[in-house]
Amino acid sequence: MAQGRDQASGAAGGSRAESAPPPRRGRGSRPTIGDVAALAKVSKATVSFVVNDRAGVSPAARRRVRAAMEDLGWQPNAGARALSNKRAQTLGLVMRRQPELLSTDPFFPQFVAGIETGLAPLGYALVLQVVPDEDTERQAYERLARDGRVDGVFLTDLRVDDPRPALVTELGLDALIVGPPQPGSRVPAIGVDDGSGIRRAVSHLRSLGHRRIGHVCGAEGYVHTEARRDAWRGALADAGLAEVPPVEADFTGASGARATHQLLDLDRPPTAIVYANDLMAIAGITAATGRGLRVPEDLSVVGFDDIPLADCIAPPLTTVRQDVLTWGNVAAQALAARTEGRAPEQITLPPVEFIIRSSTAPPPRGGRQE
Amino acid sequence: MAQGRDQASGAAGGSRAESAPPPRRGRGSRPTIGDVAALAKVSKATVSFVVNDRAGVSPAARRRVRAAMEDLGWQPNAGARALSNKRAQTLGLVMRRQPELLSTDPFFPQFVAGIETGLAPLGYALVLQVVPDEDTERQAYERLARDGRVDGVFLTDLRVDDPRPALVTELGLDALIVGPPQPGSRVPAIGVDDGSGIRRAVSHLRSLGHRRIGHVCGAEGYVHTEARRDAWRGALADAGLAEVPPVEADFTGASGARATHQLLDLDRPPTAIVYANDLMAIAGITAATGRGLRVPEDLSVVGFDDIPLADCIAPPLTTVRQDVLTWGNVAAQALAARTEGRAPEQITLPPVEFIIRSSTAPPPRGGRQE
Repeated sequence: MAQGRDQASGAAGGSRAESAPPPRRGRGSRPTIGDVAALAKVSKATVSFVVNDRAGVSPAARRRVRAAMEDLGWQPNAGARALSNKRAQTLGLVMRRQPELLSTDPFFPQFVAGIETGLAPLGYALVLQVVPDEDTERQAYERLARDGRVDGVFLTDLRVDDPRPALVTELGLDALIVGPPQPGSRVPAIGVDDGSGIRRAVSHLRSLGHRRIGHVCGAEGYVHTEARRDAWRGALADAGLAEVPPVEADFTGASGARATHQLLDLDRPPTAIVYANDLMAIAGITAATGRGLRVPEDLSVVGFDDIPLADCIAPPLTTVRQDVLTWGNVAAQALAARTEGRAPEQITLPPVEFIIRSSTAPPPRGGRQE
Repeated sequence: MAQGRDQASGAAGGSRAESAPPPRRGRGSRPTIGDVAALAKVSKATVSFVVNDRAGVSPAARRRVRAAMEDLGWQPNAGARALSNKRAQTLGLVMRRQPELLSTDPFFPQFVAGIETGLAPLGYALVLQVVPDEDTERQAYERLARDGRVDGVFLTDLRVDDPRPALVTELGLDALIVGPPQPGSRVPAIGVDDGSGIRRAVSHLRSLGHRRIGHVCGAEGYVHTEARRDAWRGALADAGLAEVPPVEADFTGASGARATHQLLDLDRPPTAIVYANDLMAIAGITAATGRGLRVPEDLSVVGFDDIPLADCIAPPLTTVRQDVLTWGNVAAQALAARTEGRAPEQITLPPVEFIIRSSTAPPPRGGRQE
């Protein structure tokens, strides 16, 4: 149902035997930086600092790391070491977003935090840029490439017919798509299947007895918006349910409220609505409540993201949770490895979770019409 | 009431006459990069790109910029230009936060977006690091200083007895405190007065007739947590109101709910609660509603931040809004100017706003006890 995908392991060119991390030393596999850190009782970041002769490590810890390296016979990857002097040891993230809207997006801070957890042990830094439009976006990549400020870039929020995979290839920037792989592009991708959460939502609502299940879409033009809408449509078709017209929105609360009224104004309104994010779902609950409907007795509501507020409201929101923190961590490791010509150490993503709380229930009797 | 403060303009050492931007050309003041951009009909970023011979500017735009520079007699700051070759043209932001908690913080994405709007026209980049504890935080600053990766750093989320102002001074890093100036530190600061929003909240509640006004504090050890609690205490004292014991919390929804129950369990519970952030306030509304209280009829609730959800819930939340985007923009300009030895161009912060929605109302009759 839920699935973690990885296209980067193949693309990075390492064999499976080399790239799989040894769960424990002593099984005949090669030692890793993690083994050194464990033996020396320090963090991987500290090992990296010692290897690179950086400040901030106590003499005692430095001695323990050197001893552990010798005991285990561990050497930092020679290729990577040779390259590192020519490299920025910095990765780039260019977010195209109206700055005013950045705070409505739960993905961004979690993903950045996840990147950090992946880069810190490697001693890498992250250069971040927020750009308002496609022109400045292109200029940002051109400049990052020209100045040698970064070794590689993350491509997030893939759009339909996105020009960036071709652009970064042309600029010679190593890159990683954070999302599903793009047809026809050789840029590797690490993504979760946006559709699986939606399919689980529809399946949950069907099992409760709902037969008219609406969908409020995210902003147009994004690959993930289409993936979520297509998954909803496909799940209804598979179950032989009639399609309620999907309503376009743009991830903001105001658009979620408007879309909810539009659906509830239909001659045969849905008894359940699946929203493309939590913010629209919560605004939808307020809109429905304002019309005198009870959630979940009269209308079931499902969100997407599991923002921190999702379980602080009444009723607590049934929603889809992606482990964005781990996604960022894995993406960071994969992109860093790619820029060094290494196979990534660890590349599995945890499955999407479906969190059932109290905003979903069986439909009202009158709503079971078909 | 609300106030924007600036300590950086004085610290950066420019005279007022030099640092004040000319509202329009033709008043005898010196031309700015903004004048060149306006005349050439391009962005300031484009002018910067032309000056630095960077890619991404069309030949036509390049010609218009050169012509405008000549017409206006504008030259990029010579000192800054001479320095720029030795400089990283990059600023650093190290956030100390549990990565898991980063997404609950509405300040972070808005502030980063604001920094970007300030840095983009200057051609500067931002290096971002998220660190989990004080040790890795110190190592991050040491490494940024040693590697010459950044010209200066922002210091956010100031803690009580924060070691960072002394650390960055010792490391020779230019720095800017994002918050109130620290006593005894020469590091300049740009901050809004956290207390002013709280004082306005108390004043609003008093005018509605409340006499028992509680406070749910943010996480311990932060300067802004203390500033908000002290402002609440001071406002009650000024009005001659009895203090309700303040309740410690940590900005999470769960802690907000717990603190709300604690206050409502008092023998003489408050009729209004001012929370140190919106997330706790919204969890507090749910907690109160779960006890059979109506908001605002039985309990008035005030938040802090004005997150996007604040007006999507029922009842829409009365709260305090800081213009964090502008704050980031101004901070970026001030720190960039400082690293170049320039006086910042523009340094005023918009005042804090108090947004009255529907979560506050006169107290219930029985609650007017004193």
